Amino acid sequence: MEFCNKIIPTKSRFADAADLKCHLPKGHTGTCEEFPFLKHLSKVDKKVAEKIKRDATMTTGAAWKSKKAGPNRILRWVMLLDDKQLMAHGINMAALKPDVVAKLREKAADYDSCILVAAKLTGLVYQMENAPTPPPEIKRCLEALFGDMAPNTTRCVICRSPLDYRLFAKAVRGKAAIETCHKNPRIHNPENVGFGHRECNIAQGAKTLDEFYQWIAEILARVEAENSL
Amino acid sequence: MEFCNKIIPTKSRFADAADLKCHLPKGHTGTCEEFPFLKHLSKVDKKVAEKIKRDATMTTGAAWKSKKAGPNRILRWVMLLDDKQLMAHGINMAALKPDVVAKLREKAADYDSCILVAAKLTGLVYQMENAPTPPPEIKRCLEALFGDMAPNTTRCVICRSPLDYRLFAKAVRGKAAIETCHKNPRIHNPENVGFGHRECNIAQGAKTLDEFYQWIAEILARVEAENSL
Repeated sequence: MEFCNKIIPTKSRFADAADLKCHLPKGHTGTCEEFPFLKHLSKVDKKVAEKIKRDATMTTGAAWKSKKAGPNRILRWVMLLDDKQLMAHGINMAALKPDVVAKLREKAADYDSCILVAAKLTGLVYQMENAPTPPPEIKRCLEALFGDMAPNTTRCVICRSPLDYRLFAKAVRGKAAIETCHKNPRIHNPENVGFGHRECNIAQGAKTLDEFYQWIAEILARVEAENSL
Repeated sequence: MEFCNKIIPTKSRFADAADLKCHLPKGHTGTCEEFPFLKHLSKVDKKVAEKIKRDATMTTGAAWKSKKAGPNRILRWVMLLDDKQLMAHGINMAALKPDVVAKLREKAADYDSCILVAAKLTGLVYQMENAPTPPPEIKRCLEALFGDMAPNTTRCVICRSPLDYRLFAKAVRGKAAIETCHKNPRIHNPENVGFGHRECNIAQGAKTLDEFYQWIAEILARVEAENSL
């Protein structure tokens, strides 16, 4: 599918970091829209739609609270700007600790990747157990991007069990039970992104998914070896 | 080994919650001491000795910061007092959220268990790779409590790899690389407590160790099943 890709005017202070574009199909009628595939979900479940937009386009919040922790959430493509350009936006990278800078920089992603991640996550939501049904035009658009959709097929990226849409509404101490996960925490594109249980995402930590499976396999091997002594 | 168990005078505001006792061997000469087994470690590595004392005797800090999060750290045996007794200490449990109360209450442990946990952790430290060597009288006391000690035998409770003493000095974003771990997070006694890697402790989460091993075995089974499709 080809996007319309006309530039959408914005008053964002980060307008120079990336053009916002229309993601309706090329040759569409009516007004241009940046997130047309989220339109239905925004109506039936605004919180989930906003979570998708946020996780797809923004760096994660700083869990380690301190003056030097850096911006809490920022557009991922803004983190592609160099230090000098960021300084012009009032973001002084040199004042942040090196590990904070590294963490922010590794969350960087270009605008187009972020849009595709948002579309990918939207499709995954519609394929969860107990999820709302997408209108035909949105299903068509998502299938054109990522292939056929089938109900109840979205699994946790990490533990591979089916994900229930209703988990989005479940939170423990203010933390949602479903999180956006990365097979490789340092790559933000549709192939690498999906949903997972919060506990699985926490267990994976900074490891890639392959490293995580390797790690837990080694743990089980050591436990077995000890038990067989 | 029998402890002296003479009561040590204290001005603590929680003095009524438990008597502090002497843990030198019964019939010892000289002044009574509450933590004699930590005396050497306190001299050679005060931070590690204080960590042992803190983790053994205090509830964990509230990671979820809020007004209703409750006391940050409190003596574990104080959490055995009932709501009315706690109110007399200025701690209003009724004002806390139910999950906070549950979390504080599950960290409760009696004074004697806490002392034995501190001794157990001290012994585990001395048996880590690159650990200091305990003076004979401390080694004797710890072996009387928990059996023979051997250098380089302390392993992560969770992943079962050897633990290096030098990890105590290693921290990422202010968090020590070694944490006190519980095979069952709701039981605080020497059989159930040990040291582990921070990443392992985080991965285990609120699960018991058995539940954790079961969980990761199931993950690997699902991944294998998918890969063999």
